[in-house]
Amino acid sequence: MPIDLSYPSEVQSLADRTRTFIRDQVLPVEDAHDGDITAAGGEKLRVELQQAARDAGVFAPHAPLEYGGHGLNMSDRAPVFEEAGYSLFGPTALNIAAPDEGNVHMLAHIADPEQKQQFLAPLARGEVRSAFAMTEPAPGAGSDPSALSTRAVRADGGWRINGHKWFITGADGAGFFIIMARTSGEPGQRGGATMFLAPADGPGIRVGRHLDTLDKSMIGGHCEVFFDDLLVPESAVLGEVDRGFEYAQVRLGPARMTHVMRWLGAARRGHDVAVAHVAHREGFGSRLGDLGMVQKMIADNEIDIAATRALLTRACWELDRGEPAANATSIAKTYAAEAIFRIVDRSMQMCGGLGVSADLPLARLSREVRPFRIYDGPSEVHRWAIAKRAVSAAKRAKRDSE
Amino acid sequence: MPIDLSYPSEVQSLADRTRTFIRDQVLPVEDAHDGDITAAGGEKLRVELQQAARDAGVFAPHAPLEYGGHGLNMSDRAPVFEEAGYSLFGPTALNIAAPDEGNVHMLAHIADPEQKQQFLAPLARGEVRSAFAMTEPAPGAGSDPSALSTRAVRADGGWRINGHKWFITGADGAGFFIIMARTSGEPGQRGGATMFLAPADGPGIRVGRHLDTLDKSMIGGHCEVFFDDLLVPESAVLGEVDRGFEYAQVRLGPARMTHVMRWLGAARRGHDVAVAHVAHREGFGSRLGDLGMVQKMIADNEIDIAATRALLTRACWELDRGEPAANATSIAKTYAAEAIFRIVDRSMQMCGGLGVSADLPLARLSREVRPFRIYDGPSEVHRWAIAKRAVSAAKRAKRDSE
Amino acid sequence: MPIDLSYPSEVQSLADRTRTFIRDQVLPVEDAHDGDITAAGGEKLRVELQQAARDAGVFAPHAPLEYGGHGLNMSDRAPVFEEAGYSLFGPTALNIAAPDEGNVHMLAHIADPEQKQQFLAPLARGEVRSAFAMTEPAPGAGSDPSALSTRAVRADGGWRINGHKWFITGADGAGFFIIMARTSGEPGQRGGATMFLAPADGPGIRVGRHLDTLDKSMIGGHCEVFFDDLLVPESAVLGEVDRGFEYAQVRLGPARMTHVMRWLGAARRGHDVAVAHVAHREGFGSRLGDLGMVQKMIADNEIDIAATRALLTRACWELDRGEPAANATSIAKTYAAEAIFRIVDRSMQMCGGLGVSADLPLARLSREVRPFRIYDGPSEVHRWAIAKRAVSAAKRAKRDSE
Amino acid sequence: MPIDLSYPSEVQSLADRTRTFIRDQVLPVEDAHDGDITAAGGEKLRVELQQAARDAGVFAPHAPLEYGGHGLNMSDRAPVFEEAGYSLFGPTALNIAAPDEGNVHMLAHIADPEQKQQFLAPLARGEVRSAFAMTEPAPGAGSDPSALSTRAVRADGGWRINGHKWFITGADGAGFFIIMARTSGEPGQRGGATMFLAPADGPGIRVGRHLDTLDKSMIGGHCEVFFDDLLVPESAVLGEVDRGFEYAQVRLGPARMTHVMRWLGAARRGHDVAVAHVAHREGFGSRLGDLGMVQKMIADNEIDIAATRALLTRACWELDRGEPAANATSIAKTYAAEAIFRIVDRSMQMCGGLGVSADLPLARLSREVRPFRIYDGPSEVHRWAIAKRAVSAAKRAKRDSE
Repeated sequence: MPIDLSYPSEVQSLADRTRTFIRDQVLPVEDAHDGDITAAGGEKLRVELQQAARDAGVFAPHAPLEYGGHGLNMSDRAPVFEEAGYSLFGPTALNIAAPDEGNVHMLAHIADPEQKQQFLAPLARGEVRSAFAMTEPAPGAGSDPSALSTRAVRADGGWRINGHKWFITGADGAGFFIIMARTSGEPGQRGGATMFLAPADGPGIRVGRHLDTLDKSMIGGHCEVFFDDLLVPESAVLGEVDRGFEYAQVRLGPARMTHVMRWLGAARRGHDVAVAHVAHREGFGSRLGDLGMVQKMIADNEIDIAATRALLTRACWELDRGEPAANATSIAKTYAAEAIFRIVDRSMQMCGGLGVSADLPLARLSREVRPFRIYDGPSEVHRWAIAKRAVSAAKRAKRDSE
Repeated sequence: MPIDLSYPSEVQSLADRTRTFIRDQVLPVEDAHDGDITAAGGEKLRVELQQAARDAGVFAPHAPLEYGGHGLNMSDRAPVFEEAGYSLFGPTALNIAAPDEGNVHMLAHIADPEQKQQFLAPLARGEVRSAFAMTEPAPGAGSDPSALSTRAVRADGGWRINGHKWFITGADGAGFFIIMARTSGEPGQRGGATMFLAPADGPGIRVGRHLDTLDKSMIGGHCEVFFDDLLVPESAVLGEVDRGFEYAQVRLGPARMTHVMRWLGAARRGHDVAVAHVAHREGFGSRLGDLGMVQKMIADNEIDIAATRALLTRACWELDRGEPAANATSIAKTYAAEAIFRIVDRSMQMCGGLGVSADLPLARLSREVRPFRIYDGPSEVHRWAIAKRAVSAAKRAKRDSE
Repeated sequence: MPIDLSYPSEVQSLADRTRTFIRDQVLPVEDAHDGDITAAGGEKLRVELQQAARDAGVFAPHAPLEYGGHGLNMSDRAPVFEEAGYSLFGPTALNIAAPDEGNVHMLAHIADPEQKQQFLAPLARGEVRSAFAMTEPAPGAGSDPSALSTRAVRADGGWRINGHKWFITGADGAGFFIIMARTSGEPGQRGGATMFLAPADGPGIRVGRHLDTLDKSMIGGHCEVFFDDLLVPESAVLGEVDRGFEYAQVRLGPARMTHVMRWLGAARRGHDVAVAHVAHREGFGSRLGDLGMVQKMIADNEIDIAATRALLTRACWELDRGEPAANATSIAKTYAAEAIFRIVDRSMQMCGGLGVSADLPLARLSREVRPFRIYDGPSEVHRWAIAKRAVSAAKRAKRDSE
Repeated sequence: MPIDLSYPSEVQSLADRTRTFIRDQVLPVEDAHDGDITAAGGEKLRVELQQAARDAGVFAPHAPLEYGGHGLNMSDRAPVFEEAGYSLFGPTALNIAAPDEGNVHMLAHIADPEQKQQFLAPLARGEVRSAFAMTEPAPGAGSDPSALSTRAVRADGGWRINGHKWFITGADGAGFFIIMARTSGEPGQRGGATMFLAPADGPGIRVGRHLDTLDKSMIGGHCEVFFDDLLVPESAVLGEVDRGFEYAQVRLGPARMTHVMRWLGAARRGHDVAVAHVAHREGFGSRLGDLGMVQKMIADNEIDIAATRALLTRACWELDRGEPAANATSIAKTYAAEAIFRIVDRSMQMCGGLGVSADLPLARLSREVRPFRIYDGPSEVHRWAIAKRAVSAAKRAKRDSE
């Protein structure tokens, strides 16, 4: 069978409906917030937008059918999530914002039936939000997850968890946490992590300050979270003990790719705004869009959009085949994070003073997309991993040929 | 006499004192504002910081001696302004923030004695602030100044001015305006502009909304300003009628360079913060600062800082010789604006999640420096001017050789 | 049906056989030429290598089945051509070098049965080579084809052609020419071109000097060609009169993509050589391949390879669906030409002094790939076309919404 | 005294005379070689061109007055060497090509009176050429000089040298060698090197093959050199035993900068050729030089030229003050090598197909300048050194503040 890059018609139709929904019902709301995109408008707006998305038949494209979703695989999420990302409020409206979307993905793969009932079902339906508590301040787990320092030790009928997390997206207002804690080994060792599920209202969990980051649109912010003698029952263990790093990989590859999908939509909006601007604005005796240096920026944006999409298509296809796709997702994430930043940056530049003002959405987009070069693995860490694989392959090839 | 790049000892001493002043008295205040650098802390803080600068003997390095300044030429301003720019509040403290600093420079060159008494003296002493009202919304004077649309027509004993300006830095709270208005010719024609001096409290001047830009630190913001039948006397004309574009050049070259000096200081702070971070933080079994990809970012920052400084030195030297230095200042401004952005961007990247949070000053620096690639002439407009000169020179050379 | 990026098994098998053939039978020959890759070893070697390719069952993957080829569509050519391009002599060995490969493609689409018999059949079988005579010296057809100046005027029973071409790849030794000549209109007008088929040995065709270009490996060189009252019969017209520009498009999109495939193979070889080098060489107390700045170059190469391949996949799929794919091929070509150059350039850099010597193939690869940023449309011309489409679309979108 | 960037009038005059000499007497010879710039035309041409330079009063600008030179310091060499570098044959004509120029510089600083008489005097006068034998194949001294493996051991009345060098510029035909050999310690240790002076015709020295590098213009090539029991007397020691690495630094900083000067001249020629081309060539209904994407390339070239010159000025000034200037020369070299490459690369691109042909000098310039990113320390090694200094300074600063 020949190579086929066309989407199934029901997927294309869902993407088209999402485009219409975003344009007609979400962008006007975002723009009415007049540049204040903090927490995507907050909890009340989340509920309203999600109801609108349900009414439009575009809610939860990623969630399993039994939980009211559309059950899309990774490949098919790409065009739909990109349309949703066209508005900074779009992912929340469709219930596909980080980290909930990735948590749904992981719970669907790993949780046991009761856990699914208790945690996955309400999350997929948008009744609660969630948080994934992994990152820690130095010298704990940052770019290097093996430094994990939060500890879970066996206690009567369960586990006692102590640790300090930060940059925990969505923590403020989350209904439950997925907690990564060390159950064996020492910080610096690769194994020994376990994931735990814990309702947010239990004693022993405290959500601290919001890290005041360049990006503002994530509902629930990026927070510090403290676990002080948090007691969880045995049934809180997600999957098996000591396999937490392994499960994190199940979440990580797809989560990277859905980030790319959403931010690509945001970048495309920036580009569209800029091209519309220069297509009509005059200067230096010419339409701006006919000036060569502006044309160069437009073309470079088009190239960056196309390459991001193409790399994404590839990585999603590998994931859908059941491959870990660690290299393909690292490549796509690294390229995309930098390309998306460039696209928005050029779009600002094309619009001159207006571009850096709140009269256009470009300045706020520029703040939202910058951290993606750091979140989900800084570009440098991905490059390091990509290179290590290439060098190892070269060594193997040499050994094999000897 | 051989080439000499050393600063006179009194200049070096002033730069050193400025460094100490900024470190001991200004940075603590900036940091105490906890990331809110809006309007450099506001008017009350301006007065306090400027008194502290007077006490430290570093106030008004650029102003003529007779107005209490240090009377530095462009070359000697470079190291002092760079030190001042190390804090976002520093230029205000020394009374060398835009647009006041450029206005002092221009008034010292062009104003008549009474105008100097009325406008320059209090401005140089920090008693009032000022604004330079030139930029207009489309289709008026933006990147292309010849599109100037604000009109001044002769009226009884003076001039009547009508027009709409925006992106007028410092307008909110300014004591007076320097207004660029068309006194002859039509929008699109190169000549016909005149500069007028007008107190801000006169009828006919209205400061509108703040453009809500990515940068926040400019005291008085970037505002819309409306002139509705503003009447000014004949004595309000700065220099001569119809020579406004020419005078703007007097202001423009130096103002570009002092922008570079200040932002270079800000970039150097970002770099210092990042290097201090990676010099002590560990990860991946190594100090971050010993990892090759981090070293690359550090070295590229050092190269960008050195090249910016070197181009600045050249352009200032040409200006001090009395040359228009249009090419040298375009080259230095274009390189610097892009280099400064890269320096801060890499500094953020080196610090990971912390870099995009308010726990370090990098995210706010990144917002402040981005617009400089647009303000004072977008990079594209400077490149266009640089290229046009090169092509014209090539044509002349060919004609001469024939 | 879901998105599918896997190749049919017979295509994968052909790609694998090609890889083995290149490694075992072509690379040793290329390396034995000790850096002299002029004209891919010349005519005698061409015949030998093509026989070997026939014996290995990898000859003419692109040619129609009836002419002894494998009849691959564009998508399926990608992996096979990339393997062939791994050696600079590989495309000649498989009979898929430019311009023959593109000429086969076009003749298969446009030629009439007799023309196919006379020209396509021997070309597809490797019995002759061909040239595509389109580019002219200024002020004729260069990057801007509408400047076409070579003229064909009706003469007794046919056409008389006069004109001057250059950069005609493969001209020296070609068996026949496809000549683009103006049959109506004036230089600067978009229509009016016709293609003619002419045996190379007729009076009126003269192959002039070789342009001595940076690249050396093309058999038959890049030559000047002069048509002085060349008489061709009516049957020499390829397709219809005045539709030449249209047919050129039939050739152009696919030819751009097969160029990308071949050069991507060359770039991959460069990368492999460099990674093998740094995987084993030590310096600064470490294996070079473990140094961060080297890892960055390796990872950037991997990203560039992956993105080139992904954009190629997309463009080929559009071509195979029968779309003109003008935008997709422009995007893929522009990205690829620059990426391939970067890959080889980084590979040289990784190998230090050896990298720029003939002890490794990198320096010669760097010379071969550089012109691709100019040949087949300079990057600037493609960007211009990409931007024009984007701006036009923005204008249409605005009109439609009004 | 204020900052002064003007050259003394006699230096400016020498630079002007050099410009005229190159334009009138050297470029015609280079162009007559029709693209074959191998070894700058060879030995016979060297003698002729050097006589012409003497007649024009521009010979040996760097050499001490007592040896017939102009005795310029580093700052003043910059404009003169840049003019000489405008032709690939220019440095040879003025006797300031590598490695002779650097060897003159070092011998003038370190040699004793007899050594000066025997080696420096004829070298400065252009009677012989020389070579600096330092680089070794792996695992010897490459980018990391401490790996030095060539050994000198005491023998009757002198030293016996054994070792294998390569990439020894100018070796073929050199009159004498300056040999870096290890006299104590082991490869990998930082000290223990000594420099020896040895006539080329002695037994025990063998010049092997030329490394066939991308660049071709160096007279005497880049060769392998073998020392097999080479015996030299005690008087062959240059300076003191075991201080060779220290002396190498004396040579290295200035040699890097004179490389930059010469290649900057070559880059400027490339730029001039390209600008002249686009200033007169038409396409797409416009002069090429008026198209925005071409203007961007022109402007970027102008910026790169200006920044290279400015960094060079700074580094030379530090050297002239007697500072080691290790950081300033690393920064200037790294920036310059990459900028010069970009300038020539853009110049090629501006000229399209002609740019990569031998009809313009751009393709050959592109081959000459590429290796400079590797020779004299690859960019990566310089960046590593720059970063290490910055990180060390940050650590010191922290310690001092505690």
